Amino acid sequence: MTADLNNYMDKLGRAARAASRAMARAETQAKNVALAAIAAAIERDAEKLLAANAADLDAARAAGLDAALLDRLALTVPGVVAMADGLRQIAALPDPVGEMDDINYRPSGIQVGKMRVPLGVIGIIYEARPNVTADAAGLCIKSGNAAILRGGSEASRSNQAIAACVQEGLRAAGLPDSAVQVIETTDRAAVGRLIAMPEYVDVIVPRGGKGLIARISAEARVPVIKHLDGICHVYIDDLADPEQAVRIADNAKTQRYGTCNTMETLLVHIDIAATLLPRLAELYHSKGVELRGCERSRALLPDIKAATEEDWRTEYLAPILALRLVDDLDAAIDHINTYGSHHTDAIVTRDYSRSRRFLREVDSASVMVNASTRFADGFEYGLGAEIGISTDKIHARGPVGLAGLTSQKWVVLGDGHVRA
Amino acid sequence: MTADLNNYMDKLGRAARAASRAMARAETQAKNVALAAIAAAIERDAEKLLAANAADLDAARAAGLDAALLDRLALTVPGVVAMADGLRQIAALPDPVGEMDDINYRPSGIQVGKMRVPLGVIGIIYEARPNVTADAAGLCIKSGNAAILRGGSEASRSNQAIAACVQEGLRAAGLPDSAVQVIETTDRAAVGRLIAMPEYVDVIVPRGGKGLIARISAEARVPVIKHLDGICHVYIDDLADPEQAVRIADNAKTQRYGTCNTMETLLVHIDIAATLLPRLAELYHSKGVELRGCERSRALLPDIKAATEEDWRTEYLAPILALRLVDDLDAAIDHINTYGSHHTDAIVTRDYSRSRRFLREVDSASVMVNASTRFADGFEYGLGAEIGISTDKIHARGPVGLAGLTSQKWVVLGDGHVRA
Repeated sequence: MTADLNNYMDKLGRAARAASRAMARAETQAKNVALAAIAAAIERDAEKLLAANAADLDAARAAGLDAALLDRLALTVPGVVAMADGLRQIAALPDPVGEMDDINYRPSGIQVGKMRVPLGVIGIIYEARPNVTADAAGLCIKSGNAAILRGGSEASRSNQAIAACVQEGLRAAGLPDSAVQVIETTDRAAVGRLIAMPEYVDVIVPRGGKGLIARISAEARVPVIKHLDGICHVYIDDLADPEQAVRIADNAKTQRYGTCNTMETLLVHIDIAATLLPRLAELYHSKGVELRGCERSRALLPDIKAATEEDWRTEYLAPILALRLVDDLDAAIDHINTYGSHHTDAIVTRDYSRSRRFLREVDSASVMVNASTRFADGFEYGLGAEIGISTDKIHARGPVGLAGLTSQKWVVLGDGHVRA
Repeated sequence: MTADLNNYMDKLGRAARAASRAMARAETQAKNVALAAIAAAIERDAEKLLAANAADLDAARAAGLDAALLDRLALTVPGVVAMADGLRQIAALPDPVGEMDDINYRPSGIQVGKMRVPLGVIGIIYEARPNVTADAAGLCIKSGNAAILRGGSEASRSNQAIAACVQEGLRAAGLPDSAVQVIETTDRAAVGRLIAMPEYVDVIVPRGGKGLIARISAEARVPVIKHLDGICHVYIDDLADPEQAVRIADNAKTQRYGTCNTMETLLVHIDIAATLLPRLAELYHSKGVELRGCERSRALLPDIKAATEEDWRTEYLAPILALRLVDDLDAAIDHINTYGSHHTDAIVTRDYSRSRRFLREVDSASVMVNASTRFADGFEYGLGAEIGISTDKIHARGPVGLAGLTSQKWVVLGDGHVRA
């Protein structure tokens, strides 16, 4: 890394650390004023944002980038309105900072409890989607954190235009504009530095492809709130309501193919397979979903492809579904805990005890009974907004909203109390 | 690392991972039976434990290890009884696993909430104290985790003797004895492997000197719940009750010198300094505490040594106290947030607004009003037991008890609900 880049990142880090102190003590009202002012600036500057985005798109096309990336990069008028609306929704959420819990008197006479506090400085690394700039800025501001954002280089003009609105809104509310900084250089070494400066950055949130996230996790010198695969399962028990089973197996797979909470493997109890598989196979066939089955399932559905060991470990993000018959609940739980990615898994059953066992024993961020895995989402869970879905166990698990960007400190209140 | 060591560690890791599944679903009663059986075995085997410890002590003396280490290494009859009592106290604590919170209906019709779950496999690395083996095993068992323990090589005979009791107790309760494994080799490379096998170990808890913890944090490939320095402050405001101020300044420094929640720097508002400093100086002098003061404090106490910048950053763990006069609350908060270790800091004041600001703006794991920093402790806070005190912000902050060894997963309950 060049000395210039090092100096640049240090300057950013120092400014973020200083701003994080001001943000931690900022009043709820000031943060909400900033969010409303950013939303207003984004709507006012819609044409500017779209022009910057058009320039990014031209450059991306000239560089021969693929259609999927261009799609993620493109901003539209409804997209700009959605960004502004998202910020207003964040403003409407309760302020998590300063919330006090569990204040109790102890035998020593002191009161002890907890206060929710910001994490400090959050580094967010993402790819082409420019709306992440506004979303991430909004969540960090409301949770009292400072943010250093690093978007994909393809989106740099769009991101800088959005960042100008963010900083204008912060100033309008009397908050430091360095509370949200967007890294301007497209030098990749900047990411390497961002994830390795614990003196300035408290946590990294990478959003993007599995390769990016794995690389950042391996190299980071600060904690990472990360999401790797979403290999989600639905297990249809022999005591399932067949109508519920079909409805959930349909929705979990076909409502959207490319999302992390989409089912990738369907497990079916052997005793209900003969009843359900033909109906499910017809359903999936009609929607163009390719099935890859275990040997026993192919005895019932001879036309489908054979699944390999690799299929149990694959996040297709596509109209492909792995299918396996299991002998009982234990085999289903074993399969999920062995091959899954600890993201989201559901059982369909009418049996009370099996539902309790599934909830307790499946080691995933979200465990569900008689509901579609597609519900694993910050909005559906009532978080109001999410910065991502964590498949880690430490700190934040599952959809991460404002509370996931905070921590709790202990508060002790006395009247001259000392320890005996 | 040799292939043998690698195989040994892999075997340990695989066994721990398998045991963690059984521990996660173990009933409260089975875990409590195990804890009681371990306590009984420890008391029954007291003579064996003391003999093993005597052999460790002989070897340590022969190796010329220092008196402080010998002191930490030594087991006594009351120490053995305390280990057993500690395990019975852990058994009496509520089981954190499976606790459900915040179950609410969402507009979609699903119910969403959280369930507390074990972290999985916890690696604990510690130095000479053999009682950590029993404490750590007890906390991990009760919280439904598996543990791999690595104590200091000086204590290896003591630790193996305690481990035998732990494993006997696990078996007596029908739990896998590989739920708690003590690394038998004294090869240092074992630690390097333990902290770098995320496939088997979910979190590392290092307990010991700053050097050990810094090295582990730098090299770990899994999250670390760690505690570095305890540079704790008391700030005496000009609106403090002088009697409370003196009592707290005395207790926070002199109740014990070597603990991480001992005050290392005393901040005094300039307007109360002339009144309080002579009294405090006399108190500390009578107890043999050396003062190192800022320039302005030396104008009032000309006999004390001058403090350097280095003193503000030093955890003395000794009868030495840094002393600085400050102009106001802002200067006190700035000093604490700049030089402190984010461990535990207290204000002494009668002023309501200043107490609120101190609680909110001091960025430490424990913040206190009119109470001694010595209260920062899992037992004093009502956790029942603690595995350590975290100075991290992520996951667990401050004293870490059973809840700090758990995480929360999301639970979704439906009746065939699908996403629209």
